Amino acid sequence: MIEISFALELIKQNVRPLPSERVSLLNAAGRTLSADVVSDVDSPPHDKSLMDGFAVRAVDAAISGAKLSIIETVLAGKSPSLPLTAGTATRIMTGAPLPVGADAVVILESTDFDPNQPSGSVTIHEGVSLGKHIMRKADSMRSGETVLQAGTMIRPHHLGILAEVGAASVSVYQRPTISILATGDELVPATDFPAKAQIRNSNGPLLSSMAARVADKVIDLGIARDHIDDLRSKIQKGLKSDILILTGGVSAGMADLVPRVLADCGVLQVFHKVSIKPGKPVWFGVRQNGDARPPTLVFGLPGNPVSTLVCFEVFVVGACQLLAGASAATRNMSCAVLLEAHLVRGGRPTYWPVSLKSTDDGRVGVRPLLWRGSSDLRCLAEADAFAFFPPRESNYQPGEIVSLLNLPVR
Amino acid sequence: MIEISFALELIKQNVRPLPSERVSLLNAAGRTLSADVVSDVDSPPHDKSLMDGFAVRAVDAAISGAKLSIIETVLAGKSPSLPLTAGTATRIMTGAPLPVGADAVVILESTDFDPNQPSGSVTIHEGVSLGKHIMRKADSMRSGETVLQAGTMIRPHHLGILAEVGAASVSVYQRPTISILATGDELVPATDFPAKAQIRNSNGPLLSSMAARVADKVIDLGIARDHIDDLRSKIQKGLKSDILILTGGVSAGMADLVPRVLADCGVLQVFHKVSIKPGKPVWFGVRQNGDARPPTLVFGLPGNPVSTLVCFEVFVVGACQLLAGASAATRNMSCAVLLEAHLVRGGRPTYWPVSLKSTDDGRVGVRPLLWRGSSDLRCLAEADAFAFFPPRESNYQPGEIVSLLNLPVR
Repeated sequence: MIEISFALELIKQNVRPLPSERVSLLNAAGRTLSADVVSDVDSPPHDKSLMDGFAVRAVDAAISGAKLSIIETVLAGKSPSLPLTAGTATRIMTGAPLPVGADAVVILESTDFDPNQPSGSVTIHEGVSLGKHIMRKADSMRSGETVLQAGTMIRPHHLGILAEVGAASVSVYQRPTISILATGDELVPATDFPAKAQIRNSNGPLLSSMAARVADKVIDLGIARDHIDDLRSKIQKGLKSDILILTGGVSAGMADLVPRVLADCGVLQVFHKVSIKPGKPVWFGVRQNGDARPPTLVFGLPGNPVSTLVCFEVFVVGACQLLAGASAATRNMSCAVLLEAHLVRGGRPTYWPVSLKSTDDGRVGVRPLLWRGSSDLRCLAEADAFAFFPPRESNYQPGEIVSLLNLPVR
Repeated sequence: MIEISFALELIKQNVRPLPSERVSLLNAAGRTLSADVVSDVDSPPHDKSLMDGFAVRAVDAAISGAKLSIIETVLAGKSPSLPLTAGTATRIMTGAPLPVGADAVVILESTDFDPNQPSGSVTIHEGVSLGKHIMRKADSMRSGETVLQAGTMIRPHHLGILAEVGAASVSVYQRPTISILATGDELVPATDFPAKAQIRNSNGPLLSSMAARVADKVIDLGIARDHIDDLRSKIQKGLKSDILILTGGVSAGMADLVPRVLADCGVLQVFHKVSIKPGKPVWFGVRQNGDARPPTLVFGLPGNPVSTLVCFEVFVVGACQLLAGASAATRNMSCAVLLEAHLVRGGRPTYWPVSLKSTDDGRVGVRPLLWRGSSDLRCLAEADAFAFFPPRESNYQPGEIVSLLNLPVR
């Protein structure tokens, strides 16, 4: 039995990153940049008005009652043709380029201007100060400037920035293909009604959905029976993926054929059993694929669904990040404050399901859920995260700070 | 100019919820349940072993050195055929049904049993207590019990529960189709290099990506020029969706034809201008579609991209939730602690971009970003959320608590 940190180190040593690829802007959300994104434009491209109104010389429009001659109207997308001189104003729309000589904008609402009765002059109700409602060329970004760095995970709001700098496609890391195989004679598909001593395969849909957010493609291989031939043929299919995840068949039982069949298929064991609760029987191995292709990573996760979920988040997500070019796996960890007392027993580091509650003083509060162990999946209906407790018996009190392994929202 | 809360109330009054539909289990993540999900099984379906080992009568195995006769082996998926009697043990695998009479399990590692040299008896190294390593029938859930309630947003880890209870398909609310139309003579597509006085259309990709998470389908209608005919034909296309979002053309400029053309197309204005910063010019209207189809909601968002983003999150996301059957719009709000002083000026409630930092004492810390106003999209490269400041001038100090409008991760 090894420590979590050592298991993560062993996984890291066996990962060879996937190459990068170009994807179009609209397919970039959720991907990780493999190269810096540099702007090819100044933003704004010119000194511009931030409001609809009149471009003026602040010195002419400093006081209420000032009356100015309108010399031109500039719409967005057009350029002014006349410079401002003393006593003049240019009617201007939001975003339009300022005329030469202008150093402030008076908003339409601060004038007597009636667009239905335009006249040759405008009177200002409220004086402006120098620089009011204008933005100078390149104030937001300069051509040649890096706007998003390699390693950034692209979020929806980043797509606006990518569009602004003309990144119609971006260079991102490839994501792994993941095959999922549930094993066990007791399993039936979710669509069937279980006979006596049977249960439904919950791990397949659970892992498929968890994996979808980090994988290029998820292949659910269904259920393999506890027989060598069925296991072998399905494992061989799964080894065509970058990652093969099996569930069940890795603990100490006589039906636990999985490690044996994996060895038959050329998968070398790297570790078996980690000091983690739930999830102790977790198995990890690697099948070399020659120089042309990175090795296939094989995870044997315990059959109990909560163990499988914790092991997926702790071990597999990090492996996906490393495959996708990250220099280190980063777990979605944060801190939170316990809202209720919680007794933790013993020997292994423990992940305990909790629900979150944002408190009025800016804290994340967690409430430990009533959880009956690694096969009690129903308890996760209310779970937002797992709280992490180090390996010692302790009666944690409300107000103590714990680390969280957050569960994905979608 | 109306208050944010009144604008939200007006939106709510004009929404007619979309019907529900059934989707298959694997397509359920991210959808909202429109009916309770009830289990059709007990879990576990029988008293079961939580470990690989021996089912025993605790009274026979309370002390180290006890020797028991092995009467049977039960694999997962099989049922025991013999009841336990005094002095006997049944070899049992994780998840398998307990034999009648068993009330504890001794784990394999606490015995002298060697699977390669099975004999008729087993000696126990470590005594067990009553109930050890067993789970009683229906301890996790009962047949007939509600496991996920209507209104629950289905997260990846919920798919395991749905599979366990045989919910091969679930009843969820339909999500809206959303059309997006950017307007303005100054815009060019992200793929083009802008000429003088032009900028790229960043709002289209920005909103497409933001909308993808709440919509059934997003249709990017591209750019409409500031001309009545082009606007009208593209608006008419967009009105076939449940929601049409326009950007630009709603402030006070003479090129702001949008409200006029919308009226021509039968869209009635509900409100124009809200006391919010950024985003004041936001426009909302409704086109009735007769009894057969809920009305189309039309949002005219300001052309500046940060205004558009804030208005989308504050007004459009809530409308999508209401369309998708939620009884009230819930914004993704939480509290956080300011890490730096921040001066807020004035008259309107203000959303200011911030980056988040989880602190060691369980707090969410926020750092206000250097932001040059509603057209400065580049500043959002580092943004995780907007901090909300109420409408008063104030110099906020480090340690003060602020509300957050969180930006989606993907």
